[in-house]
Amino acid sequence: MRIRLTVAYDGTAYSGFQCQINAHAIQDVLNEAVSDLFGQEIRTIGASRTDAGVHARGNVAVFDADTRIAPGKIAYALNARLPEDIRIVCSEEVSPDFHPRYTDSEKTYTYRIFNRRMPDPLLRLYTLHYYYPLDAEKMDLAASFLIGEHDFASFCAAGFSGKSTVRTILRSDVVKEGDLLTYTVTGSGFLYNMVRIIAGTLIRIGGSSEDPAEMLRILEARDRNLAGDTALAKGLTLEEIRYL
Amino acid sequence: MRIRLTVAYDGTAYSGFQCQINAHAIQDVLNEAVSDLFGQEIRTIGASRTDAGVHARGNVAVFDADTRIAPGKIAYALNARLPEDIRIVCSEEVSPDFHPRYTDSEKTYTYRIFNRRMPDPLLRLYTLHYYYPLDAEKMDLAASFLIGEHDFASFCAAGFSGKSTVRTILRSDVVKEGDLLTYTVTGSGFLYNMVRIIAGTLIRIGGSSEDPAEMLRILEARDRNLAGDTALAKGLTLEEIRYL
Repeated sequence: MRIRLTVAYDGTAYSGFQCQINAHAIQDVLNEAVSDLFGQEIRTIGASRTDAGVHARGNVAVFDADTRIAPGKIAYALNARLPEDIRIVCSEEVSPDFHPRYTDSEKTYTYRIFNRRMPDPLLRLYTLHYYYPLDAEKMDLAASFLIGEHDFASFCAAGFSGKSTVRTILRSDVVKEGDLLTYTVTGSGFLYNMVRIIAGTLIRIGGSSEDPAEMLRILEARDRNLAGDTALAKGLTLEEIRYL
Repeated sequence: MRIRLTVAYDGTAYSGFQCQINAHAIQDVLNEAVSDLFGQEIRTIGASRTDAGVHARGNVAVFDADTRIAPGKIAYALNARLPEDIRIVCSEEVSPDFHPRYTDSEKTYTYRIFNRRMPDPLLRLYTLHYYYPLDAEKMDLAASFLIGEHDFASFCAAGFSGKSTVRTILRSDVVKEGDLLTYTVTGSGFLYNMVRIIAGTLIRIGGSSEDPAEMLRILEARDRNLAGDTALAKGLTLEEIRYL
């Protein structure tokens, strides 16, 4: 049967989700735990290849195994074999033809910015520290221009090999709680580094006299050079993948 | 002149705040940074000797130095010399007779509990994960019985050498946000392990059929054996010391 895992991890210590040569990937550690549990070499298929240092509360991986362990209990058995910075938060049986990347889904990411003069050591691994004051309302307005179906070529890192840079964004907003700004974005798909480039652009707009509508002009120009820097990986968390 | 530092740290990697033989204490690292900045051996005096694994957003340390650096700039110069898990969030000049332990103050601690079946790897270093459901309202009511001046002998670890176990608690409540329960307590002083023993008692009451008023009976009995276990260090954060 095919088992779907919801995987949460602190990406700090890893080279990213996907197995790579000479690297310490989350998927390597996951494959080892799954193989150990079932006593045979098993390779998982992951949904999102998060980059080095990016976190997740809801990445997804699947594998096939013949087992009499109840699907819901596999999470506990795997957690006993995994390091504390990787946790399976849910395990369930899915249809044998379910594929975590080729099934329509909505992904939600957050990008968190700690905006105060002095950093907070308790947030250092999960937020970007930004020293200069940011205007969260302005950032929220700028973020709203991205909602809808658009060509996001301006927010795509060089080296993208996909066919189309058109994507649909369903939610895109910035919320401020104390010194913490959270950018939340939901979409049917994302280009390489797209959320981090949007976050970098929001920071540039929020920390300067740039008009929030500059986001619209950047979007329409389809030119990566007009957008902001790619924001640091550690502020990014893949919160959820919802299959449709 | 005497300089007061507000010190924030992630206690995960340290043996506690205070210097100890054969240990890696936060104060050791702080003394080294201060000594390096002023080019002479300087020993700081700390306000609170937090235990191994306990965090702080607002511990306090003072030292004396002859310097022409503006007091407010010392924080930046020290942060450049400190590891990322220790940050000076404020530096200021205080009166030469200010002592961080012998000056009247109100300390605020939080104890954070992540209450869901599966742990969250992004919160693992800063919360206690508790598997069984907790009744936050019941815990909040139990916590409220501690407000006021009481003999807290029931909530004091063995080996306490002080004269009196009477303390005054000004705030004691439990707030639930999603799966996160935060116990906040403010008082003029705390006994050894007091907040962690209160947290352990709140967890016992919140996870069982015990009456919230049991907290009052435990308080009145002045017997450590009646209170709950000492909750894990990693859930505890010294949030603030307010000098009166």
